[in-house]
Amino acid sequence: MNILVTNDDGINATGITILVQSLEHLGEIVVVAPDREQSAVGHALTLHQPLRAAKLGRNRFAVDGTPTDCVNLGIHSLLPFKPDLVISGINHGGNLGDDVTYSGTVSAAMEATLMGIPAFAVSLVSNGEGANFSSAGALAAKLACIIGERGLPGDTFLNVNVPDLPAELIKAPLITSQGKRRYGGMIIDKIDPRGRNYYWIGTVDVDFYDLAGTDYYAVSRGHVSITPLHLDLTNYQSFSILQEWGLS
Amino acid sequence: MNILVTNDDGINATGITILVQSLEHLGEIVVVAPDREQSAVGHALTLHQPLRAAKLGRNRFAVDGTPTDCVNLGIHSLLPFKPDLVISGINHGGNLGDDVTYSGTVSAAMEATLMGIPAFAVSLVSNGEGANFSSAGALAAKLACIIGERGLPGDTFLNVNVPDLPAELIKAPLITSQGKRRYGGMIIDKIDPRGRNYYWIGTVDVDFYDLAGTDYYAVSRGHVSITPLHLDLTNYQSFSILQEWGLS
Repeated sequence: MNILVTNDDGINATGITILVQSLEHLGEIVVVAPDREQSAVGHALTLHQPLRAAKLGRNRFAVDGTPTDCVNLGIHSLLPFKPDLVISGINHGGNLGDDVTYSGTVSAAMEATLMGIPAFAVSLVSNGEGANFSSAGALAAKLACIIGERGLPGDTFLNVNVPDLPAELIKAPLITSQGKRRYGGMIIDKIDPRGRNYYWIGTVDVDFYDLAGTDYYAVSRGHVSITPLHLDLTNYQSFSILQEWGLS
Repeated sequence: MNILVTNDDGINATGITILVQSLEHLGEIVVVAPDREQSAVGHALTLHQPLRAAKLGRNRFAVDGTPTDCVNLGIHSLLPFKPDLVISGINHGGNLGDDVTYSGTVSAAMEATLMGIPAFAVSLVSNGEGANFSSAGALAAKLACIIGERGLPGDTFLNVNVPDLPAELIKAPLITSQGKRRYGGMIIDKIDPRGRNYYWIGTVDVDFYDLAGTDYYAVSRGHVSITPLHLDLTNYQSFSILQEWGLS
């Protein structure tokens, strides 16, 4: 298999290094990843400035852009082949619930899907040191094999979240739906050394509704969560309500 | 009504100016918008650096961040009230099909929805000069009234696209589904004045599948398109396929 690997934690992150090691036996692996951390960039595409790609070694490129830029540049310019699969991760931290819309990791898989290339994102639900990346790596390799054989449903990519536990404690993967965050935004409002105001979007404690069948529900009980996502955001169920508005 | 207005073309764009003029009779309008163009930033949130907000006048703030940042900063810090509605636009250019995932305009409405505030994005399907923003403005005011009375279905926001035609030629609004782009990415690969390579993500001709019922289908026939979007990207129809993989 030919696999393009990217992430949003940056090319030197532990998660992408372990991901590549876990995949090496499967075929040709090419890494095209941001040269620095790019978390919460969502599906951002750099249109208004040029991009640079530094070749750090064989099959290894660092790009000064977003994960979405990396997938674009990799597939249209840097890679000698069209990949059979794009894998984004291993993200250091979960990508659960509504947070997928902010996630650079997940957006890289979304971009590949737009190009018609099978893809998944894989995240380790941990923010601490000493994270157990190896089980997530092994799972990614297993999924790569299955997708190589069976493909993915049309227009669909996977958002995989792995609990931060030793391999023997991780429970079987569950197919889940996207969960829902309990919203709690905050802004830090301070004065800089020159006496001017500045604002900083605060970190919010991770807190999701504990709904059966969701990604959060699965990982918080020790299961791997596999959520099939697609690109159609249409809420078909609301059509009848809007049609009653009498606009047409 | 208290309405927060933002966009991704920047606070000085014609579209947001006309939007504010169209809404003024409805109540208190506060503008919190990027200080420069922020297109294709998707649902990016600025976490790793501070943000500045310049007060340009009464109820008018320019932020050095993304549309998603503007909604956050507006609601949690700058506004004296929780808005009844967030409107993002009028974008100069359509936000159709899969492009909604890249769109700063649409992501601002998504962010408000995450906070439980009704929202819609409104875009004029035009990239030329001399665009007909006024019909889009009038429609936005009409939708604001309806949403003020009826609310929106839960977790749902609207993606509104208006054809670039004089008011009398625009046909009735249709409730549509998100269309699908014919993918055609390209990268410009050049040499800079110092002899180094650079890459630029190329513009792609707008081209969508002409599928009945979609946003593209409606606007290309002169109709206003109103697409209800939600935050749940789960592809429920693919559960049975993935369950056959025997991972659980």
